[in-house]
Amino acid sequence: MDKVNIRSELARISEYWSQVVIGEGNNQLFKIAKGLGSTNWHKHDDQDEIFILYKGCMIIELRDRTIQLFEDDMFIVPKGVEHRPKADNEAEFLIIVLNITSTEAGGKPNL
Amino acid sequence: MDKVNIRSELARISEYWSQVVIGEGNNQLFKIAKGLGSTNWHKHDDQDEIFILYKGCMIIELRDRTIQLFEDDMFIVPKGVEHRPKADNEAEFLIIVLNITSTEAGGKPNL
Repeated sequence: MDKVNIRSELARISEYWSQVVIGEGNNQLFKIAKGLGSTNWHKHDDQDEIFILYKGCMIIELRDRTIQLFEDDMFIVPKGVEHRPKADNEAEFLIIVLNITSTEAGGKPNL
Repeated sequence: MDKVNIRSELARISEYWSQVVIGEGNNQLFKIAKGLGSTNWHKHDDQDEIFILYKGCMIIELRDRTIQLFEDDMFIVPKGVEHRPKADNEAEFLIIVLNITSTEAGGKPNL
């Protein structure tokens, strides 16, 4: 594998909440995405989901609290915990998840 | 778990090549470190090692080539591949590895 620049790859994304795989290691997928608005409420029964914010700010709503992420913040949504990422303005982030099919489609909002 | 700011945590590190765990998900440890100089040549037979550079620049020497990392670059050292991270000036980075004891101590240079 070659090196990859995370910010450069983020700049190429045009569709919101669509994840692009930029690397794989230890059976984890490294995926980048842009967000605007929010996904549907969802959870992953089989894996944790790690968020690292690269640009803008994003809220991760949990049922019992709200996490506000700024640049370079990392937050780990534990497996089985319902969550809904939300961005009032465009946000760019890296997520790290298991290299297996999730039990849910990731909560991508309907068009 | 609460959110953690990667750059803020990096700023608190004073010892080079000493890794600090800032999170854990999917049995992976998220660790940050500062580097100056180089580690010893080493390899990890049991896991890949993911580097994401946050500050400065760092070279990852492999036996057959050299990878030059700049800010926001990600590089994955495959399991079993000998490598030696090297930084002529202070570099700050995130590494992601399996939550198990490595077969090697990570190549931290002798004092």
